[in-house]
Amino acid sequence: MELLKNKILSSGKVLGEKVLKVDSFLNHQIDVELFNEIGKEFRRRFEKKHITKILTIEASGIGIACITAQYFNVPVVFAKKHEGSNMDKETYESEVFSFTKDKSYKIKVSKKYIDSKDKVLIIDDFLANGNAAAGLIDIVTQANAEVSGVGIVIEKGFQDGRKIIEDKKIQLESLAIIKSMDEGKIIFEN
Amino acid sequence: MELLKNKILSSGKVLGEKVLKVDSFLNHQIDVELFNEIGKEFRRRFEKKHITKILTIEASGIGIACITAQYFNVPVVFAKKHEGSNMDKETYESEVFSFTKDKSYKIKVSKKYIDSKDKVLIIDDFLANGNAAAGLIDIVTQANAEVSGVGIVIEKGFQDGRKIIEDKKIQLESLAIIKSMDEGKIIFEN
Repeated sequence: MELLKNKILSSGKVLGEKVLKVDSFLNHQIDVELFNEIGKEFRRRFEKKHITKILTIEASGIGIACITAQYFNVPVVFAKKHEGSNMDKETYESEVFSFTKDKSYKIKVSKKYIDSKDKVLIIDDFLANGNAAAGLIDIVTQANAEVSGVGIVIEKGFQDGRKIIEDKKIQLESLAIIKSMDEGKIIFEN
Repeated sequence: MELLKNKILSSGKVLGEKVLKVDSFLNHQIDVELFNEIGKEFRRRFEKKHITKILTIEASGIGIACITAQYFNVPVVFAKKHEGSNMDKETYESEVFSFTKDKSYKIKVSKKYIDSKDKVLIIDDFLANGNAAAGLIDIVTQANAEVSGVGIVIEKGFQDGRKIIEDKKIQLESLAIIKSMDEGKIIFEN
């Protein structure tokens, strides 16, 4: 997606070899107009999948998921990392290991909000090692629902996320795939 | 806003005297169609304010803020409760006391994303004691920007939030104001 790649080149900042800072438009300040174009592109790529629900994870997935959901006319569910005071007792849970924080955390979704008839599109801002996506796939699988696809805004193509998802025979669509960020220079795949 | 009040009556659950569970459409599963109506209503109520930015707080404010921002054509910024690995060093910070969790937490916004020319609309899902809103107002004030208004989806009218905001002479618009929830029965103001 050219618009997104141009935005990454003009506004992203490479910190070290693996960290791409895109907080001016993606995960702290949000460029809602760009999100709409992202939503339309996800729609185009998954339009034959009869999606019934979009699943994401708090916090930075929520904005993308909500804007995208408008193009599918479906509700969003976001998995919780941080337990609220009034979360349902009956939840699907999965364990996600975060390399950035070097520890595991639990994600939870109330059993009420995914059922076996759902065709779920998983949306997230980043794909790196694929652990968050794998946790969300695990939750959909526990609900006996179908994972119809995974839509990612920025994939770090030099990490292992893609393999984890494709090994499960799930359609993965990343709108920008970064091949390398050596010496601060962002190179995209194709 | 009648549509919202009807949704609260049909789908909300009162837990105890002070907790209203609305996770089927507001803060776990998200009814994006309803959020669009909420966004339009915020636009109607603040349309004369020349808003340049919408500020909210992770996680459940983000969806409402993003959908609403479409009607103002402005970016969203969400204050972070949980520090990411690549947050700017230069931030505005405020301390928020959570009654539900009986402890304080810090919220942070990078100094890059609010400047003194901004006219900021603060959006959140709930107003209860007003501590989160006060923290966001504090951050906008630190940036020497203008708080043009506070837009809330559900206000617990029996708690003190409104007074805190109105004492600062800020326009507060809550789309549903709950007067009482005694014995599980939700009564709205007007």
